[in-house]
Amino acid sequence: MTTTNAQILLASRPDGEPTLDNFRLVETPIPTIGDGQVLVRNRFLSLDPYMRGRMSDAKSYAAPQPLDQVMLGGTAGEVVESRDPGFAAGDQVVGFGGWQQYVVVTPSRGGLQKVDTTHVPLSAYLGPVGMPGVTAWYGLTRIIAPKAGETVVVSAASGAVGSVVGQLAKLRGARAVGIAGGPTKCGYVVDELGFDACVDYKAHREVRDLARALKEACPDGIDGDFENVGGTILDAIMLRANAFARVALCGMIAGYNGAPIPMAMPQLLLTNRMKLEGFIVSEHMDAWPAALQELGGLVATGKLRYTETIAEGLEAAPEAFLGLLRGRNLGKQLVRLS
Amino acid sequence: MTTTNAQILLASRPDGEPTLDNFRLVETPIPTIGDGQVLVRNRFLSLDPYMRGRMSDAKSYAAPQPLDQVMLGGTAGEVVESRDPGFAAGDQVVGFGGWQQYVVVTPSRGGLQKVDTTHVPLSAYLGPVGMPGVTAWYGLTRIIAPKAGETVVVSAASGAVGSVVGQLAKLRGARAVGIAGGPTKCGYVVDELGFDACVDYKAHREVRDLARALKEACPDGIDGDFENVGGTILDAIMLRANAFARVALCGMIAGYNGAPIPMAMPQLLLTNRMKLEGFIVSEHMDAWPAALQELGGLVATGKLRYTETIAEGLEAAPEAFLGLLRGRNLGKQLVRLS
Repeated sequence: MTTTNAQILLASRPDGEPTLDNFRLVETPIPTIGDGQVLVRNRFLSLDPYMRGRMSDAKSYAAPQPLDQVMLGGTAGEVVESRDPGFAAGDQVVGFGGWQQYVVVTPSRGGLQKVDTTHVPLSAYLGPVGMPGVTAWYGLTRIIAPKAGETVVVSAASGAVGSVVGQLAKLRGARAVGIAGGPTKCGYVVDELGFDACVDYKAHREVRDLARALKEACPDGIDGDFENVGGTILDAIMLRANAFARVALCGMIAGYNGAPIPMAMPQLLLTNRMKLEGFIVSEHMDAWPAALQELGGLVATGKLRYTETIAEGLEAAPEAFLGLLRGRNLGKQLVRLS
Repeated sequence: MTTTNAQILLASRPDGEPTLDNFRLVETPIPTIGDGQVLVRNRFLSLDPYMRGRMSDAKSYAAPQPLDQVMLGGTAGEVVESRDPGFAAGDQVVGFGGWQQYVVVTPSRGGLQKVDTTHVPLSAYLGPVGMPGVTAWYGLTRIIAPKAGETVVVSAASGAVGSVVGQLAKLRGARAVGIAGGPTKCGYVVDELGFDACVDYKAHREVRDLARALKEACPDGIDGDFENVGGTILDAIMLRANAFARVALCGMIAGYNGAPIPMAMPQLLLTNRMKLEGFIVSEHMDAWPAALQELGGLVATGKLRYTETIAEGLEAAPEAFLGLLRGRNLGKQLVRLS
């Protein structure tokens, strides 16, 4: 076992689109643990779009990622050493260990969960049976709440969240329509995930053009939108929204680099009597148990499909993260630590 | 009693802002009634911003006002002759009689209500104890649902709806802040209606400037917005919204003449985890009895203040309506028929 802990720090804040220069790899000694602490070896890092927001110091719902500190993020790994009676070496755990190989955790302060990898692989606890899955579950069941026969659209449909949204919508008897970038992703969404249709936004850049493509994919209009992108994609969806349509506003990746993303016709919210709700899944902890029970069961029984894009080695994390922001991944973007 | 029925028809659809040329006054015979019918003499016409939408034939929640037909609209009046056993000459009634002196109604088809004018004046059934009042009640209590100590903002605060919103918010222990055009309206909102503050949007045309004025009027931020105007007013409110703020989207008069009214920063809906809901009060009939009970009680006991701007004579209706769209009225805009 090596005695150093490789870490990736936030070296500088991005001006527009992040670059590799915003990150710095350092080596530090593996810390020793005190009473009540646990040393965890991270096996997988979760890369998520919300991290882009924290790299800036603009006002947001989360405190910004501090400069020169280890990049924050969800992790799955294994207990190496424990001085907490609730954990033992070999335990599989998920937590918020950041972009590093080892992390010291004080479990009594919360934030470290043992997970059962008998039927669900460890990495899935960072995807469909973790934060992305619960995000999909919450927005779909608590905000959109589709009735059988209704149509639900989800943008970034091939991603970790979007892929779950559409499958849960199908399980509830709704028509699921994805929006994704390029024929490969769209093919995956329909053929592998079982969505009813998928619109390639890269083939329909102009809002009216995209709205026409949505009309074809959603012949009965749109009753629910799980929105991950915003910008012209949301504008086009609103043009096809039915009366009483619901928008679960989960992300607006179109604007994450600071470009203005005005909503062109907010009056449609009124004329269609729409309901729009922004949400952060970590503020709805009461929903997690029910969500994880359903999601864990579906993954364990093979009824919920998911794909992972895995970058190898901590040093690959920054580039993988930039790729995620550019939509280069399919499904959940992870980093596997050696 | 005259034998003719003066009526105002929609002569043409407006291109942008409506003009007097869009209306036409005609005289027709007073119709005779058949079995089960009632002849009502209208005493008051209600003029409401929603009528602007119906003058166009753009897609909206309501069917457009037909050309060359009597302008649709709410009315309060008196039964002149009845061949329905439920009504008698002299009954005070409210209904949807349109811009005319007389109307024949078949009460069994719905749409005609007897009202008690012992403690509530007839005209108030077109204002605080009618559609505008219930609109305010629904958006405030069912969508914004303010807690004591929260801050509620309402645009078009001196109007028939806005004036009720702020007073109901105060009665629930919230801070009520109006937005209105000009010092007279703002003075009325604070001094007569008892709002805590009122911002004159005409003195703060630029969105950042208006947001600064709102910051002063709402030192603890904004928890609820009852939105009647949209455009830069909504943009400025969103800049001051607190986490979990609710927007009851009732009207967007800023865009009624066809000007684009993009929402500048929809990402605030996400970062502030806001909830926004468009609504039409006529689709929530289940709320009316509770609303009318509270509103009627408050008006009868003098606890809910309201003001009427009354134009005299049917022929004054078009000009009064254009004035309403330009914000020339204070409180409820009515037309009294001679």
